[in-house]
Amino acid sequence: MLRREEIAARLTLDADLAVAVLTSFIVDTVAGAQARGVVLGLSGGIDSALAAALAVRALGGARVHAYYLPYRLSSPDSRRDAEAVARHLDLPLTSWEITAQIDAYFDAVDPEADSVRRGNKLARERMAILFDQAKKRDCLVLGTSNKTETLLGYSTVFGDHASSLNPLGDLWKRQVWQLSRHLGLPSSVIEKPPSADLRPGQTDEAELGVDYPTADEVLYLLFDRGLRPAEVVAYGYPAAAVERILALERASRFKRRLMLIARLSGSAINLDLELPRD
Amino acid sequence: MLRREEIAARLTLDADLAVAVLTSFIVDTVAGAQARGVVLGLSGGIDSALAAALAVRALGGARVHAYYLPYRLSSPDSRRDAEAVARHLDLPLTSWEITAQIDAYFDAVDPEADSVRRGNKLARERMAILFDQAKKRDCLVLGTSNKTETLLGYSTVFGDHASSLNPLGDLWKRQVWQLSRHLGLPSSVIEKPPSADLRPGQTDEAELGVDYPTADEVLYLLFDRGLRPAEVVAYGYPAAAVERILALERASRFKRRLMLIARLSGSAINLDLELPRD
Repeated sequence: MLRREEIAARLTLDADLAVAVLTSFIVDTVAGAQARGVVLGLSGGIDSALAAALAVRALGGARVHAYYLPYRLSSPDSRRDAEAVARHLDLPLTSWEITAQIDAYFDAVDPEADSVRRGNKLARERMAILFDQAKKRDCLVLGTSNKTETLLGYSTVFGDHASSLNPLGDLWKRQVWQLSRHLGLPSSVIEKPPSADLRPGQTDEAELGVDYPTADEVLYLLFDRGLRPAEVVAYGYPAAAVERILALERASRFKRRLMLIARLSGSAINLDLELPRD
Repeated sequence: MLRREEIAARLTLDADLAVAVLTSFIVDTVAGAQARGVVLGLSGGIDSALAAALAVRALGGARVHAYYLPYRLSSPDSRRDAEAVARHLDLPLTSWEITAQIDAYFDAVDPEADSVRRGNKLARERMAILFDQAKKRDCLVLGTSNKTETLLGYSTVFGDHASSLNPLGDLWKRQVWQLSRHLGLPSSVIEKPPSADLRPGQTDEAELGVDYPTADEVLYLLFDRGLRPAEVVAYGYPAAAVERILALERASRFKRRLMLIARLSGSAINLDLELPRD
């Protein structure tokens, strides 16, 4: 049995190596698609800041197109931090408010829609804009979802979770923090509590009901090391947190698959069956 | 070597059996997700009409929620046909125009955007609305993309191609026609030339550069029977059509995968590597 300190140590990356792998991934994927570069949304948060920093290292700033797409309820801190990241990376930042199109829908259809539905619509509008800009510029859309939030399902399917390539998808949240510090990203971005900023005062950890360091370690023990939940609890992690993490992972599996296609033939297009020539 | 007539015969379904399989698929998937029913967009076209008909057979009309979401350039025929389908199936049809939010974006950002970009934005706005309504109603989003258009990439990724479950995804276009006739859907819907109706006068076959019967047969020979392109041409299909179909299939493979995630660990969330407990 690993000691708790050993678990944390195993989740610490060789930062130089990780940066080299992730920048190569971006270079190779963009070249393979014969694209001119990438577009991404800068939210003011740490994940998109790290994705942008990796892309600039990989491609140079001229091939990285950054967008800040606020809604009227977005925090002014988000704008300040998105601008700080862009300045730090010497990237122009295009800022377009998306309030008109979001409100056009909800005002007409359902003014009483709750904040989860509004948050999902914001995430999908941003996705649609980023893919539109990518089409215009002959670029790919750079994803910014990390592994912890992806496994917990803390994302909008076909929204912020949708991208062409994602350099952060195999990074635990603590590794996002580690690499962001390693690359010297602005401290205001690194130190603020993670938030989807879909509504005022929202924080990821309050909404998830579990803190990221615990989530990272429990998910690592469950999925990378294949431990049973009871074995994870024996390490001293609260049983309630382990339960919560398992429940979130289970409830969000549909977000990590393509849609389900009814199968009638020997060559249905589905995850479990590739076409013979693929 | 099969004769040409045999190829066509092999693409003819046992219609009663296919309807039974596809309705069971809908029943089981909705029950498995503990959802109340499905939402779908009726475009006035044959694919969404057949998906709706299957859903009504599977779940009963009270659990099927149909939306017609036109843009200002949508054809009046589309509305007429969507209404005919809803009437035929005895479904209420909710109709909301999406012009305000689409124009809010392009007018502000890029009034010169071409029709492909506008078409993609329409498809993604409809997706976002259908998923919002599904969230509100505790339902799943029913997909309507058939196998032929999916393999040819004739869809918007994270747009019309996005759904929770898709009963048509393993049906060749001719099988969509066959089942639609079998279920007695309105003849105006069955007989009109297929069109995405993203701009006036658009037809699928003109845009694809190949007719659906040829595409069905060539794709079947290539992917279900594993023939080489030269062998397909030897059947008498025009070499240019086979080339075109292969090029469309190759160029659209990215639409049939989840996004690419950089891999650093033994449990990266990707198509080629499932989590141990999945």
